[in-house]
Parts: sequence; C-alpha cells; structure tokens
Amino acid sequence: MRNISIVGIGSGNPEHMTIQAINTLNAASVLFVPTKGPDKAELADVRREIIARYVTNPACRVVEFAVPQRQTADRTYNQSVDAWHAALAEVHASLLARELGPGQTGAFLVWGDPMLYDSTIRILDRVKALGTVEFETSVIPGITSLQALCAAHRIPLNTVGKPVEITTGRRLKDTFPARSETVAVMLDGEQAFAGIDDPDAMIYWGAYLGTSDEITISGKLGEKSAEILQVRSKAREAMGWIMDIYLLRKGRDFDAP
Amino acid sequence: MRNISIVGIGSGNPEHMTIQAINTLNAASVLFVPTKGPDKAELADVRREIIARYVTNPACRVVEFAVPQRQTADRTYNQSVDAWHAALAEVHASLLARELGPGQTGAFLVWGDPMLYDSTIRILDRVKALGTVEFETSVIPGITSLQALCAAHRIPLNTVGKPVEITTGRRLKDTFPARSETVAVMLDGEQAFAGIDDPDAMIYWGAYLGTSDEITISGKLGEKSAEILQVRSKAREAMGWIMDIYLLRKGRDFDAP
Repeated sequence: MRNISIVGIGSGNPEHMTIQAINTLNAASVLFVPTKGPDKAELADVRREIIARYVTNPACRVVEFAVPQRQTADRTYNQSVDAWHAALAEVHASLLARELGPGQTGAFLVWGDPMLYDSTIRILDRVKALGTVEFETSVIPGITSLQALCAAHRIPLNTVGKPVEITTGRRLKDTFPARSETVAVMLDGEQAFAGIDDPDAMIYWGAYLGTSDEITISGKLGEKSAEILQVRSKAREAMGWIMDIYLLRKGRDFDAP
Repeated sequence: MRNISIVGIGSGNPEHMTIQAINTLNAASVLFVPTKGPDKAELADVRREIIARYVTNPACRVVEFAVPQRQTADRTYNQSVDAWHAALAEVHASLLARELGPGQTGAFLVWGDPMLYDSTIRILDRVKALGTVEFETSVIPGITSLQALCAAHRIPLNTVGKPVEITTGRRLKDTFPARSETVAVMLDGEQAFAGIDDPDAMIYWGAYLGTSDEITISGKLGEKSAEILQVRSKAREAMGWIMDIYLLRKGRDFDAP
C-alpha cells in the first residue's frame, strides 16, 4: 500500500512550518509539487526555500507536475469545478502510478491548510474512487492565511462567544451585514467588500501575508474601502499577482445579546 | 518598551509547534504559563513537554501564574465574561510589572491559535488601556483544534466554494440546519448536536485531538449521536476532563446552488 501525506505548509512565511509537517516531508520518498504557471514566482520560491531549509533527508525526491487550468466557458461554477477536479484526479492518478512504488510514501505540499478552500483532499478521494491506484492518506494541518491575517492585525477572529462565518467574495452579499457579525472572506477576485453598504463596519485587510511584501490596512469600511482598492490594484500591477484576504466586523465584544 | 508575544502552541500534539513559535519562545526572557487548576494535568504535561523539547535558550525563565475563575452567579454571560476579563487584566498587569523589565520580551503560551476562542489578545488590550505598564504585542498563529479535527477525519472544512460557520454549542440551534451547510462547534458544554433534528446530516466529532488519547467518530447524526454521547461521557469520567469539537454538515460538494 502507498501512503500519501497531504501537508499544509503555511501561508508564505517558511517559519509557519510545523515540526509535524517537517517530519512528514522528511519521511516521504517523493515530494509532489504542483506548478501553477509563471505568475506566482514568489510563492514557488517560498516552496523551494521550505524544501531547501527543512528537508534534510537526501532520499526525498522532488517531483513537479503541471496542473490543468479550470475551464469556465459555457458552464456553471459547479460544473466547471467538478470537471476540473475530474481532470485533476486523472493527472494525480497517473502521477502516483508513475512516481510512487508500492509501499512508498509521497507528500503533497499544500499552501495554508488542506482543510480550507483547498481541494487536494477531495481530488485524492476521487483518485481512490477511480480504482487504478491504491493508497492511504493522512493530513497534516498548516497555518492558513486567515490565521496570518489575524496575527498581522493582532486581533481575535471572533468577538466574545459569537460566531464567525468564512465565505468567498462571490457569496459575501448573502452574509454581511445582515447575517453574520464577523465574516472572513477568502478567494475574492471581485473586491466584494467595496459593494457592502455598512460604512461603520471594520475591515481588516491583508495581502502577501507572511511574506516580506506583506501589506495590511484596517479601519472603518467607509473610510478604508477606496484606499484598499487603490493599494491592491497598484500592488497587483507591480507584483504581477496578488493573494489577499480580509475580515469584516460589525459590533464589539460584549454587545448584546 | 516591553514586548509581549502571544504564541499559539497547537492543540495537544507538541509537533503542532511552528518554527516561528519555537523561535519566538527562545527569544523571550520570560515564558508566561497560566495554571488552570488540577483537572487538566495532561494538557499541562503537553505544555511542559513543549518547553522542554523546543526551548533551548537557557536564559528563558518560566513563570507560572494562577488565573481567577469566571463567576457566573447573578449575571448574564456577557457580564460574567466582561468582569472576568477585567479581573484577568489586573492579574496580567501585575504580572508584567513584576516579572518583566523594560526592554525585555515575554511570551504567553496559548492553546491552539490566539485568534480563535481565546482571550489573551483582548485581555492584553485591556492591560494596555489600564495604562500601568507599557508594551508592544505580536501574535504568532498556531494549529487550532478545528484544524486537528479536519486532519484527523481527513476532510475539508468547507464544501466546494461554500461558506462555513464557526460557533459555540450555546448558539448551534440558531445556525444549523436552517442557516449554514457546514458548522464547526467549539466550546460545547451541553452536547448541542444531540438536540439537532437532522438525522441525515453528517457529524465529525473528536476529543483529546492531537494527543495519544485522541478519539474520533463520524457518520450520520441520527446514527452516531447516541454513541458519541456515550463515548464522551465515559471518556470524561475516565480522564477527569474532556476537550472536544465537532463539525456538522448537510449537503455535498457540487450540490446546487
């Protein structure tokens, strides 16, 4: 039986690596590294630095593999992602059959934590369902960009005893401000915060978190929204890419009920 | 100026420690360790093991300090926590003034991540507001029990592109199943899942996550609810304490909309 470890490597700062993640990488015969195009060279550098700094077992072999792009024409979001995952499952099945012998252990390096808006777990479940290659999986948690955001702003995610919602830009309008007092927004390609009409809500925004290019802005949404749009646009142009995340909050600790 | 680092140390497994957390502890003059009574000796052991294993700087001094209990009689939940935090702020202010010289760095060791259902950040904000001792803070993220839960069950937290709510047992009935497809429940002293009438929902439950006593149970809520109650009650009696967390989910990836 092959073993596959799905390893969270944190959010941009190589020091986010846990001892468990380091030990897991060093126990693997093969480290699988997806390549996602040339636009995120800085992230690829972080991954290379993690491997160079922490993988001390000379028997670990690094295998890069290209991932297909998601097709969005003429289909719904769900159809698009479903078909993409099916294609990814085929790619992963071939990869495992080709690169990993029976009894060997492979590790996938995943940004953040494999549990949060990452599909490596469910893609490997689909590979299992294909039935062409047998393996067991284990999952190693890692520091997410949401944690890096709260740490950078030195704020708790929740107000005292209150719930928190984590959602995407596409769905933010369903959630805030009507439904949830605190919302963390990941995967926002459309800067949905700018469409929220709640000028007194607080926004805590961060980009390139954990890296030396980290930018953070916080304040009242009505006062900071335009500044964030401008800073984000400028940074994206200068860097060629951006990864950002933010928290919106109305209300304070100990507000009723 | 004093510096205070609020350091997440993970959720029971000493290998949850990040390199950043280890480096931060080793850079501190004083490691502040709250003592919370004799009932969680195993957790105290994990903390001691973390310090013994990872703190190699002989100049680091460990200072244990007793924390007051929260009083719940004749007050609302908010009043109770607010008064408790005020008392904790006084304790922390004396502690810092007594144990940390100007220019020195202290570190607080926090279970999980300081951002999630922990009050060290907001208590130190209250200490600052008291004005009796000056300091800067920094926050180091750590692996939360929610991440340990998903890793143990090898599941993503969210379904594809969908939101997730994190809440407390007290508030679960407001949220699930009516409002949120996926809910993670922390701080549940009343086993609120047993009161949810949605037998086909999935539950992923875990106790003592990350430790050698880890227990996990998953399945349909209608089929597993009684078993979890029984296992939980038995474990709590045998160990003298319990820390558990769970995820409830209805629906599956690629369900509309």
